[in-house]
Amino acid sequence: MARIRTHKTRRIAHGDSVVVIGMGRFGRALALELVDEHTEVLGIDEDAEVVQSLAGSLTHVVRADSTKEDALRQLAVHEFNRAVVGIGTDLEASILTASLLISFGIQDVWAKATSEAHGRILQQLGVHHVVYPEHDMGQRVAHLVRGRMLDYIEFEDDFAMVKTVPPTDITGKRLADSAVRTRYGLTVVAIKRPGEGFTYATPDTVVEPDDTIIVAGRTRHTERFSELR
Amino acid sequence: MARIRTHKTRRIAHGDSVVVIGMGRFGRALALELVDEHTEVLGIDEDAEVVQSLAGSLTHVVRADSTKEDALRQLAVHEFNRAVVGIGTDLEASILTASLLISFGIQDVWAKATSEAHGRILQQLGVHHVVYPEHDMGQRVAHLVRGRMLDYIEFEDDFAMVKTVPPTDITGKRLADSAVRTRYGLTVVAIKRPGEGFTYATPDTVVEPDDTIIVAGRTRHTERFSELR
Amino acid sequence: MARIRTHKTRRIAHGDSVVVIGMGRFGRALALELVDEHTEVLGIDEDAEVVQSLAGSLTHVVRADSTKEDALRQLAVHEFNRAVVGIGTDLEASILTASLLISFGIQDVWAKATSEAHGRILQQLGVHHVVYPEHDMGQRVAHLVRGRMLDYIEFEDDFAMVKTVPPTDITGKRLADSAVRTRYGLTVVAIKRPGEGFTYATPDTVVEPDDTIIVAGRTRHTERFSELR
Amino acid sequence: MARIRTHKTRRIAHGDSVVVIGMGRFGRALALELVDEHTEVLGIDEDAEVVQSLAGSLTHVVRADSTKEDALRQLAVHEFNRAVVGIGTDLEASILTASLLISFGIQDVWAKATSEAHGRILQQLGVHHVVYPEHDMGQRVAHLVRGRMLDYIEFEDDFAMVKTVPPTDITGKRLADSAVRTRYGLTVVAIKRPGEGFTYATPDTVVEPDDTIIVAGRTRHTERFSELR
Amino acid sequence: MARIRTHKTRRIAHGDSVVVIGMGRFGRALALELVDEHTEVLGIDEDAEVVQSLAGSLTHVVRADSTKEDALRQLAVHEFNRAVVGIGTDLEASILTASLLISFGIQDVWAKATSEAHGRILQQLGVHHVVYPEHDMGQRVAHLVRGRMLDYIEFEDDFAMVKTVPPTDITGKRLADSAVRTRYGLTVVAIKRPGEGFTYATPDTVVEPDDTIIVAGRTRHTERFSELR
Amino acid sequence: MARIRTHKTRRIAHGDSVVVIGMGRFGRALALELVDEHTEVLGIDEDAEVVQSLAGSLTHVVRADSTKEDALRQLAVHEFNRAVVGIGTDLEASILTASLLISFGIQDVWAKATSEAHGRILQQLGVHHVVYPEHDMGQRVAHLVRGRMLDYIEFEDDFAMVKTVPPTDITGKRLADSAVRTRYGLTVVAIKRPGEGFTYATPDTVVEPDDTIIVAGRTRHTERFSELR
Amino acid sequence: MARIRTHKTRRIAHGDSVVVIGMGRFGRALALELVDEHTEVLGIDEDAEVVQSLAGSLTHVVRADSTKEDALRQLAVHEFNRAVVGIGTDLEASILTASLLISFGIQDVWAKATSEAHGRILQQLGVHHVVYPEHDMGQRVAHLVRGRMLDYIEFEDDFAMVKTVPPTDITGKRLADSAVRTRYGLTVVAIKRPGEGFTYATPDTVVEPDDTIIVAGRTRHTERFSELR
Amino acid sequence: MARIRTHKTRRIAHGDSVVVIGMGRFGRALALELVDEHTEVLGIDEDAEVVQSLAGSLTHVVRADSTKEDALRQLAVHEFNRAVVGIGTDLEASILTASLLISFGIQDVWAKATSEAHGRILQQLGVHHVVYPEHDMGQRVAHLVRGRMLDYIEFEDDFAMVKTVPPTDITGKRLADSAVRTRYGLTVVAIKRPGEGFTYATPDTVVEPDDTIIVAGRTRHTERFSELR
Repeated sequence: MARIRTHKTRRIAHGDSVVVIGMGRFGRALALELVDEHTEVLGIDEDAEVVQSLAGSLTHVVRADSTKEDALRQLAVHEFNRAVVGIGTDLEASILTASLLISFGIQDVWAKATSEAHGRILQQLGVHHVVYPEHDMGQRVAHLVRGRMLDYIEFEDDFAMVKTVPPTDITGKRLADSAVRTRYGLTVVAIKRPGEGFTYATPDTVVEPDDTIIVAGRTRHTERFSELR
Repeated sequence: MARIRTHKTRRIAHGDSVVVIGMGRFGRALALELVDEHTEVLGIDEDAEVVQSLAGSLTHVVRADSTKEDALRQLAVHEFNRAVVGIGTDLEASILTASLLISFGIQDVWAKATSEAHGRILQQLGVHHVVYPEHDMGQRVAHLVRGRMLDYIEFEDDFAMVKTVPPTDITGKRLADSAVRTRYGLTVVAIKRPGEGFTYATPDTVVEPDDTIIVAGRTRHTERFSELR
Repeated sequence: MARIRTHKTRRIAHGDSVVVIGMGRFGRALALELVDEHTEVLGIDEDAEVVQSLAGSLTHVVRADSTKEDALRQLAVHEFNRAVVGIGTDLEASILTASLLISFGIQDVWAKATSEAHGRILQQLGVHHVVYPEHDMGQRVAHLVRGRMLDYIEFEDDFAMVKTVPPTDITGKRLADSAVRTRYGLTVVAIKRPGEGFTYATPDTVVEPDDTIIVAGRTRHTERFSELR
Repeated sequence: MARIRTHKTRRIAHGDSVVVIGMGRFGRALALELVDEHTEVLGIDEDAEVVQSLAGSLTHVVRADSTKEDALRQLAVHEFNRAVVGIGTDLEASILTASLLISFGIQDVWAKATSEAHGRILQQLGVHHVVYPEHDMGQRVAHLVRGRMLDYIEFEDDFAMVKTVPPTDITGKRLADSAVRTRYGLTVVAIKRPGEGFTYATPDTVVEPDDTIIVAGRTRHTERFSELR
Repeated sequence: MARIRTHKTRRIAHGDSVVVIGMGRFGRALALELVDEHTEVLGIDEDAEVVQSLAGSLTHVVRADSTKEDALRQLAVHEFNRAVVGIGTDLEASILTASLLISFGIQDVWAKATSEAHGRILQQLGVHHVVYPEHDMGQRVAHLVRGRMLDYIEFEDDFAMVKTVPPTDITGKRLADSAVRTRYGLTVVAIKRPGEGFTYATPDTVVEPDDTIIVAGRTRHTERFSELR
Repeated sequence: MARIRTHKTRRIAHGDSVVVIGMGRFGRALALELVDEHTEVLGIDEDAEVVQSLAGSLTHVVRADSTKEDALRQLAVHEFNRAVVGIGTDLEASILTASLLISFGIQDVWAKATSEAHGRILQQLGVHHVVYPEHDMGQRVAHLVRGRMLDYIEFEDDFAMVKTVPPTDITGKRLADSAVRTRYGLTVVAIKRPGEGFTYATPDTVVEPDDTIIVAGRTRHTERFSELR
Repeated sequence: MARIRTHKTRRIAHGDSVVVIGMGRFGRALALELVDEHTEVLGIDEDAEVVQSLAGSLTHVVRADSTKEDALRQLAVHEFNRAVVGIGTDLEASILTASLLISFGIQDVWAKATSEAHGRILQQLGVHHVVYPEHDMGQRVAHLVRGRMLDYIEFEDDFAMVKTVPPTDITGKRLADSAVRTRYGLTVVAIKRPGEGFTYATPDTVVEPDDTIIVAGRTRHTERFSELR
Repeated sequence: MARIRTHKTRRIAHGDSVVVIGMGRFGRALALELVDEHTEVLGIDEDAEVVQSLAGSLTHVVRADSTKEDALRQLAVHEFNRAVVGIGTDLEASILTASLLISFGIQDVWAKATSEAHGRILQQLGVHHVVYPEHDMGQRVAHLVRGRMLDYIEFEDDFAMVKTVPPTDITGKRLADSAVRTRYGLTVVAIKRPGEGFTYATPDTVVEPDDTIIVAGRTRHTERFSELR
């Protein structure tokens, strides 16, 4: 416990430590990604086996019942500025935990919701950011299932980025000459040659048939473009 | 049942109908998104209440036990070219269903995995695309929790797109003059004025403090850029 | 259903109908008391047997799953001005229901809490009045268990009313003469002769040994007074 | 255990120790209220976690199975004069415990009932006082839900006390002049100025619009009075 | 139901109908034995299968939840003079049922107890006769396990009857001559020749080695006698 | 364990030790009765709490899983001559245990059956004596419920003994003169004066109204006799 | 039911109908194999879904609870000469069913055992043939796992038949010349050319390297032989 | 653990150690048979009691959760060449374990299937040999149930071996003279005199009525032959 308090002192200096409660698939991936970017993480889970399996990857990971105020206070959770509730299947535990984090006055509370009702309750409790992984990933995969897109992401209503293979009528010429923006309402943002990484596309870039491209534009336009051959 | 068979005939003509098995949060969002794009969907779930709640949104949605070969054949599932297994918590049902779809010889089978072991089994069975919503969303949210990014997506190893607020030293001037690519290794892809939608950024675009921008580039560069103020 | 809608129309005229969700001991007693006072009540419970047993006592009582928005809307619950959530043991159902009522914008939502955490969540959701029957009754009975009080109620911190038998040194004389306020810091509010109801006490009232009295004053004073013999 | 036996000796001297069995919301509130008034309490619960959480607040609290005669005798429960059975949801445990207390010949046994049948059985067993928290609180809250009352308590059939805001026609004048008793059949018992505590009302008290008052009288009269504006 | 009410009318004439609640092994054997002796029985059990299996043997047997007052009143159980509660494993149901029968004022209530605590509660409720089949049969069989007794019954403390084979020193002579009473403190009550029934023994009866006899006397004497060879 | 082996050696000398498996109500009463008569008992139960509660009353009582051959052999159960299976509710455990005892070749195996099917299986396995406590006690109590009998036992088909109060026409005279055998087909076996024990009845015995008597005879005759007043 | 009775009549003529109770993997394969050989089968299972799935393959298959005597008698099971109990996981059901079949006096009762204790009980009940599929198949597969055998069966202690590929030193010559019996203590029983069936081997048979052979002999000899290359 | 690694080193020398996972009836019999033939076995089971009961019979048997990659690697399971999955009732555990073994690249993986679907999944995962004990034994026993066969095994479609009693028309003469092959299409492979073992049959062998014989030939021929008397 002492070690965690020490780390807390350092955390305040860095200002960016995060407490992640519920180390399922979501919480675990989130925590490991944060650690990869040198952000300190305190991981909490109710399951001793889960905690043990993460002991090598996360410096601070403890077994605790996050629905009890005492347990969280002993871990100094109330002193964090950012907290993520990754608890998923146990609606009650998710709500009890989020309720405590809000009552602690933590500035930035994120929580995963598994249903609309769950999401609404989290928002009424005062959670700042509610995330719906299943729902969002379902929407995203829908675009991939349909057709020739390799990846799809919608940044906002009606503005998407799509990774796809280029249709034949834009290959073999400079992007400036293929008039993608005029004809398809899209811009080619990046291009990837076979065996290389993505690089930014310029008007002079010549797209080859084996390349992969990322295009940006209105959702409907990206759909139509990815169906061209 | 007759209606579904009829629809199957039409489907073969269109060549893009999709069967979605397991209408939880993932399968439901996926199916509704497909319907929004005018793709015909046959939704299957074991739970009568779930089926009923979707009857208004999906034209073809039936209650069936997808782990039984007879049940799937009666619904002509073996005649589809694309199938998605959205079953999540019940590992056994997910595997039994995926096993049947593969044994039918369906060309494109997608399945959601809830753990590494689940994903490995799906791949060994021959599933073509395995999706990990919780894991992927966990990684994505990690970038948002840390800082000032509004959205984050990694298209490939080391190539990401980030929605963020612009740092002060690029506002008030033309993008061509702010030298974003030189100084930060990034390109500003799109820009959104308050109250408007995203539009494609050009060298002449002048970023204002209240705008939202999307930048593209190496993961690390996007991280560093979004921490500027 | 039609009948309920009709009653809703009348309700708006009267302005005082109440929807009571969860007809356990608390909800049932509350609903029956309201009916006794000519307030219209719509009772809702998940258990068909409970609903049937109340069909004779409440004019409007229906079986519904109050955690589903559709179910509540079909019953026009969102048009009520007052709602009581009497659901007790099922924390999740209590929270889901309260969350819906708040999202409907109902002006006056009451809910029963079975623990501190439950109460805190209800308040964070925006519930206007949280009631703790077990806790409050426990406190009240504590005073009766100790001694000679017949009933006890604390209206506010440090101001209580107590029903008790009179100590010998105030019996047989006018209240004005027994100096209860001076000597005990209390006022005798009401008096009950054997076989009669309570009536208001006046300075001329003579307390007899077989009478029951109600005294008002500071909690500590009432305690001490009731221990006199 | 020794400590408890010691305390038992002292208890007999004081004559007012109480054993409380079942430390749920009811038993806990009751026990803490008794301790606040300097009554010694022996708390018993089956749940080790519950016992531990109360160890700081109650001097004597032990984990035991109160349905076993041996367990109760080891704790000298048979030597107490007053016992409260706060066990709620487990009907069988409540009855087995109450049965033992009665067989010990304890003079004053209180027990909480959660249903009519439960209450009838407790009375047939010989329990001296049966309490129905959910039912009683339901009735009491009914009066508050309906209207403008702030608190309500019925001491006896047809004699209630109500905390409420004063109607306009009694404010700004001496109580003696507002003829509350004549016009409404009620007496103003106490009055509370904003920011102060309750004090006893006299004929010379002048009620102001922001005051809170307690009135006593027949149930129906208090109802009608509290609906005035 | 009508038939049962009719039978009730007749029952009052006969004055000896019995309601048996809980048709397990105990209740069933009891009810069938009563029917064998031309006593009318109303059998009640919660289990439809049990009721059906008895429909051929008992004229009046119905499925009902005996823990509900309404259910019992509909069957006119409150009009019976004799009732037996044969419910065994479900302590709560046994107690709830017995409590109702007592509250009906039935004159003669019998109930089976499965433990000491169960028996004590039944007696505290006011049940008139509590029966312990397992316990009593255990005691009785103990005598048979030990030795050569064929059957054993203790009518009262220290007065038992034993069925046994005769020891050699009383066979081949008149009972008057074998001095059983003098030598063993016992009396030979009855005797059974091979292939016949029991008949009363007289002083002139000659006991043969193959006979079976019943002897009466003090428990200890019967024990010792049955160990002779 | 050593102690038990030692005791086994002694047991073989006495030839009458008994192993009792399953210390429920039946097994417990049986074992205690055997101990009262100075028969050594080895009690076995699966439940540690049950074993502990009997540790003071039975010299040899151990916790073991009697369905495992190893466990029984370690306790030398295979060396006993008499065994009782008192296991009741767990049909499978009863059968597994009885099967092992029979396979050990124990000479005298008793077992309690809770249903006809249970009893048939025990007999097919080779159990020597099958006991039906619930059934037998149900039959016996039937006679007491009906009428004025105080106790009843049927030794054989159509030969019963009944404890009852004497009808008026046999009181006040010598038994020889009341012609009980002629008129009722019965014999008065024993008589009990108020405050005394039973003694054997002789022709000269004069029965008084307050006495209790035991009569023997055909079942039907005892029934009719006990209905006389 | 009528149809089954009719079939029963015919069965007695044929003398070889079989009743199979428990249509799991074992019972089902057994029943279908019997049908393939024109033996009439009455299949019984508790599970309606199982019964329905077999309705097309077995002429007589019904849903019934085989632990109830009435249910079996209604199906005339007691008139069969051969019965198989294929019930596996439910020990109690297996025993209850076997007990009934034995009590019917059926001449030939087969039953599957899932453990040694289960098998012992079945034998004590009087079941004529007890089968251990898991155990026997485990032993048989052991020989295949080890080495080059293709199939293995032990007919008796120390006499096995093995399907294997021929070692090089017996190929290319007449069996009479390869002296298999002398050198390996075995006889080649049958031989299978690629693409053909097995035929009986004679002294003149020449074994080729691609053939498969069946050899017979002592277990140890077959083991050693199959390890030759 | 060290001991197992040591054994692993030796195993590579012998090249024939086997890991058996799931020590139920199938795995246990398989493992013990392997040990009987001097093959080293590593037995793994999840149940500590099972492991302990085998500790005397198998040199290497450990408790481990075979669905976890770490657990299997710690036991060096990935270094084995042969593995058997004997897990039966828990479909999920069977699949997770088999998936890991395949991912380790083990050359020879055997697994038991309890249903067709289970078998199909195991094959899709890449398991090399799938065994159906219940199904195969059911088929085999079918032949024994029907008639006079003592044992039956089908080596291939339409080639079986049958142990049976000889029909009268082949007894008392040389096999060469009884023309079994001509008349019945079968060969007598082996013969067993009462009290002796099986020996190979020759043309000069004279079959006696009390002998047992093994005949080989087409399935249908063996059936017909075994029905002769």
